[in-house]
Amino acid sequence: MLDKIRVVLVNTSHPGNIGGTARAMKNMGLSRLVLVDPMDFPSGEARARASGADDILDAAVVVPTLEDALVGCSLVLGTSARDRRIPWPLLDPRECATTSLEHVQQGGEVALVFGREYAGLTNEELQRCQFHVHIPANPDFSSLNLATAVQVLVYEVRMAWLAVQGQPTKQEKVESTAMLNSVPVTSDELERFYAHLESTLVDIQFLDPQKPRHLMSRLRRLYGRSGVSKLEMNILRGILTETQKAARGELSKRSDEDV
Amino acid sequence: MLDKIRVVLVNTSHPGNIGGTARAMKNMGLSRLVLVDPMDFPSGEARARASGADDILDAAVVVPTLEDALVGCSLVLGTSARDRRIPWPLLDPRECATTSLEHVQQGGEVALVFGREYAGLTNEELQRCQFHVHIPANPDFSSLNLATAVQVLVYEVRMAWLAVQGQPTKQEKVESTAMLNSVPVTSDELERFYAHLESTLVDIQFLDPQKPRHLMSRLRRLYGRSGVSKLEMNILRGILTETQKAARGELSKRSDEDV
Repeated sequence: MLDKIRVVLVNTSHPGNIGGTARAMKNMGLSRLVLVDPMDFPSGEARARASGADDILDAAVVVPTLEDALVGCSLVLGTSARDRRIPWPLLDPRECATTSLEHVQQGGEVALVFGREYAGLTNEELQRCQFHVHIPANPDFSSLNLATAVQVLVYEVRMAWLAVQGQPTKQEKVESTAMLNSVPVTSDELERFYAHLESTLVDIQFLDPQKPRHLMSRLRRLYGRSGVSKLEMNILRGILTETQKAARGELSKRSDEDV
Repeated sequence: MLDKIRVVLVNTSHPGNIGGTARAMKNMGLSRLVLVDPMDFPSGEARARASGADDILDAAVVVPTLEDALVGCSLVLGTSARDRRIPWPLLDPRECATTSLEHVQQGGEVALVFGREYAGLTNEELQRCQFHVHIPANPDFSSLNLATAVQVLVYEVRMAWLAVQGQPTKQEKVESTAMLNSVPVTSDELERFYAHLESTLVDIQFLDPQKPRHLMSRLRRLYGRSGVSKLEMNILRGILTETQKAARGELSKRSDEDV
């Protein structure tokens, strides 16, 4: 699906921004870069900033006009930093991403179009776009670096793509490893822990059974909201057992060598 | 609200990334930049890449250690590109942003921590973070440019901030006593607790300083995600103090009548 979404850069001045765009695209799993009349390309600076996304640069298509860049696209979205005189359907990056993915799912191809570093897209170019996309920046300092603006849009495209895939947005491997250690304790295990905790607090004379006040309810609130895992529960119970031994003077004596 | 969220860059090599970070922050309305032992700062290259976000660079605070950078923060989120052996609560950038905003609404301060260009954050640094944040990149090409990664996170922070604008903060209607009891502890208070916990676990012979294994990191993970309040911290510290007395045989002897 992501191969149906192309990134189009119009009249880019700085080759570093082309390299940065290639890197951002590859980071987010996009591959199709189209350059409309770039000022300086190919370029060593683009390659340096691409930091290994050479395949994106090598496959980049250079064309003379925006019209050429949009061949085959049925949805064109143009980034716009400024309010325009002509009102136009305006999307934020998240809406841009979901609209793009829906369009691809229906069999279409999409172009995300970015203008010149200082002047953006012309009104004529913007009128070729069905939608304008605006990154909701600080009104007093609204001009993003070009490659950075690309990153924001392709990040949202990837988030929308992951959501469509039904994939978790987090790393699956981490999740599955975490799952093993994060099996939550059951309610009755938690109750046994509270009973053990209470008797331990009495043993170390922190809790006076005659005047318990709010202590246990406060500790229940803390541990209750933490979602304690079975592994963590084993640790906490182990600490309580050793604490009780200490309170009863049952700790094994260490030899001087151990100290 | 955005002024309660600081961006922390650790050991940044390239001053251009510091400038790019300043620009991305100002674009998204953030202002507080903290630099931990940067390789080259102040720098003309940083200023050039900041493209007018000079005020962010001028106000940037340079500190020698991560600990210094986190003073006053009650929620610390660290970016992580790689799978880790020890599973940790993992957020995507969107969850990172909503979690951060909720925390600020409750009166806390937040740090978004970014590691070195090539090596990221060390395991020790990551264990100082309550949550890890992972940008869901292409697994085959997952390393984002540093300033670009900052842009993604601060973009999500701005989106979350715009979403809560005009909405009453969660805590507004909550009783003021509840407010007092739910003030979150700061990062440095949490560190002092971990030090106290570790020495107590040694005292009760639950932790062998020669073979610490993963015990402390697992306990950091548990308490780190719990959002411990100042009141709860006082209770936990009190329990540790009494436990240490028990381990030293210093508990007051109870008379039989008390039993």
